[in-house]
Amino acid sequence: MPIITLLTDFGLRDTFIGVMKGVICSISPNVQIVDLTHEIPAQRVVDGALAIAGAVPYFPAGTIHVCVVDPGVGTVRRPMLASIGNQYFIGPDNGLFSLLIKKAEEQTTPPIYVALNKTHYWLPQVSNSFHGRDIFAPVAAHLANGVRLEELGDPFENPILIDIPVPQKTTDGWLGQIMQVDHFGNLVSNISREQLEPGKGVNISVKNTLIKEVVATFGSKPAGELIAMFDSSGHMAISVVNGNAAERLGAQADELIRLTFTSEQAS
Amino acid sequence: MPIITLLTDFGLRDTFIGVMKGVICSISPNVQIVDLTHEIPAQRVVDGALAIAGAVPYFPAGTIHVCVVDPGVGTVRRPMLASIGNQYFIGPDNGLFSLLIKKAEEQTTPPIYVALNKTHYWLPQVSNSFHGRDIFAPVAAHLANGVRLEELGDPFENPILIDIPVPQKTTDGWLGQIMQVDHFGNLVSNISREQLEPGKGVNISVKNTLIKEVVATFGSKPAGELIAMFDSSGHMAISVVNGNAAERLGAQADELIRLTFTSEQAS
Amino acid sequence: MPIITLLTDFGLRDTFIGVMKGVICSISPNVQIVDLTHEIPAQRVVDGALAIAGAVPYFPAGTIHVCVVDPGVGTVRRPMLASIGNQYFIGPDNGLFSLLIKKAEEQTTPPIYVALNKTHYWLPQVSNSFHGRDIFAPVAAHLANGVRLEELGDPFENPILIDIPVPQKTTDGWLGQIMQVDHFGNLVSNISREQLEPGKGVNISVKNTLIKEVVATFGSKPAGELIAMFDSSGHMAISVVNGNAAERLGAQADELIRLTFTSEQAS
Repeated sequence: MPIITLLTDFGLRDTFIGVMKGVICSISPNVQIVDLTHEIPAQRVVDGALAIAGAVPYFPAGTIHVCVVDPGVGTVRRPMLASIGNQYFIGPDNGLFSLLIKKAEEQTTPPIYVALNKTHYWLPQVSNSFHGRDIFAPVAAHLANGVRLEELGDPFENPILIDIPVPQKTTDGWLGQIMQVDHFGNLVSNISREQLEPGKGVNISVKNTLIKEVVATFGSKPAGELIAMFDSSGHMAISVVNGNAAERLGAQADELIRLTFTSEQAS
Repeated sequence: MPIITLLTDFGLRDTFIGVMKGVICSISPNVQIVDLTHEIPAQRVVDGALAIAGAVPYFPAGTIHVCVVDPGVGTVRRPMLASIGNQYFIGPDNGLFSLLIKKAEEQTTPPIYVALNKTHYWLPQVSNSFHGRDIFAPVAAHLANGVRLEELGDPFENPILIDIPVPQKTTDGWLGQIMQVDHFGNLVSNISREQLEPGKGVNISVKNTLIKEVVATFGSKPAGELIAMFDSSGHMAISVVNGNAAERLGAQADELIRLTFTSEQAS
Repeated sequence: MPIITLLTDFGLRDTFIGVMKGVICSISPNVQIVDLTHEIPAQRVVDGALAIAGAVPYFPAGTIHVCVVDPGVGTVRRPMLASIGNQYFIGPDNGLFSLLIKKAEEQTTPPIYVALNKTHYWLPQVSNSFHGRDIFAPVAAHLANGVRLEELGDPFENPILIDIPVPQKTTDGWLGQIMQVDHFGNLVSNISREQLEPGKGVNISVKNTLIKEVVATFGSKPAGELIAMFDSSGHMAISVVNGNAAERLGAQADELIRLTFTSEQAS
């Protein structure tokens, strides 16, 4: 079964997502539909870009990802399809696929971008506020049915890219930021292992709180202790063992995180 | 694969929905199960009636919808199945299908109503508080397997209908009400395009706030502006561009919305 | 299609669950994935143990349940698979399957326990904080593909069991506790019908509030009334008819509930 994933800021209170699935199943009855998340904060394209980029490596070739964080719905912003690596991405051309596109530039097969403009593959009536239902879902279903890219629209180049904050080098370390607070209250930053320096220790400061080492796992410290570790996405997270770091520190996304190298590795 | 949708007020905190899916898959292993929503406000049959009526047009012929907003569970209220158009609806006979039934009266093929009373198609033990699991899910799965309507129960007429508020004509316009606040804080009313008058402008008043025109799309106004537009369900919604109208106005469902026609179309 | 269920404390805000599904579909494309719930309170193994034990009877033979409430992830705690009755359970060896294992002791076919240690069936890279993705999801998918238990790991005995509170006999009745507050605010206790005594009435006391009888269904009393009844899980629940008992009483999980028998059945 072809896989179609859905990632949106639509929440689960309304029938938005159910209706998108109805549209998909009407066109392509035998698909596996996977919800990535529908709790992207409303209109936060950056959060959507981070979420889809982190999820993609765990899906098989041919997966079709429908991503809708779309503050510009109903305006001139372009509906697009991107073929990157061996997976497909459908959504607004507003930077949502920026991280994937930047990563793809390092690869041998260039991405293909298609401006979705063949209305034959859309719902007959297109609203001004719900392209997820009217354009993106039906296009995804037709793609799952084997319709070729060139039938769905015309190729284009230079999709819109947005800046995703990256850590800045300082005189004695790095200045990063918290990109996301997860369900457990872990503060996930944009710092990754490549920012550390072999043989050197590191002090980590966030919200005026100092953490003097990076531990390998939650189990390294007793419950209730504040720790820094690299999480399952490869990013440095500030966590409380079996607790909630966001609540403990009163911290949220966009908070700064400062790394300062020390002359020797903290024991 | 046959499609079975689920729409309830059960929430996602407990295993209620997972268990209903287990019951369905035990009886009919190869179905596509779609969650419409499980966040209908507890016991609000009107909200459920609006939600299912809005979702139905996006599902294919043969879809089986299981809808459970059921304050009378365990009492004498009748479990029912309705065949309306080319789709099926299973749930309590408490008005949940009122909007669909009223629409169906305009159509050529009359609906068929079945009182579910053949316990052979239920779970062996039926609780007094969870007919979603014990009656509705198994009946839906048997229907997906091809069991015929007349085997599931006896036909009946005149299912219970509830009043869904409709806009009232006033001397100079219409008086409607907010039916629903969606995930984005949009205030979705019961006003539709047919309430407008060609060539006339309209003033819209909600919570002592005046909006002087209906715009076509969010992009018509800058972020933060309060607007009125017809949303993807065809209803007039009060929204804040890239913001939350419910929070801005301190408004919620059941709030009144007043339309007053002006002599000429506002520019 | 084989069924794989997921029960976690991961919530739905992040892409954790979506990514687990991607891993499963990458290995075993034609499975029916069912979410049991992802709202188990963070790190509450007891709540997870109750939830999975309550759901299992509604799933067919061969179902594979992936359960992850895992405060010890990344430590020495063992990843395990249990074959109990005719279903499979995958997760940390931390007591999550205690109730199922205790029930299985009453049955003729003893459970089989496997310590998951064949890294060939894991993702190539295993993080210290997300074994749901890296170990449990891929093992479940391989099991769905027909890989045999003995290939996934080595048998072991005596998995960790945790105490789940049971009602205590008192001189004139029972002392139980609220185990869970459900979506509707019903207070679900660990009291079941076997604690009642035939021919005797019972007074129920919770949060200094007295309830003088057990009713059969919500419909036995008018809306707004506080009642005690046996719910769809067979446990005594304190409810408000069409209302929210947790809010009414200001009660939550772990609250005590006291049963006192009266000389004759209350009318």
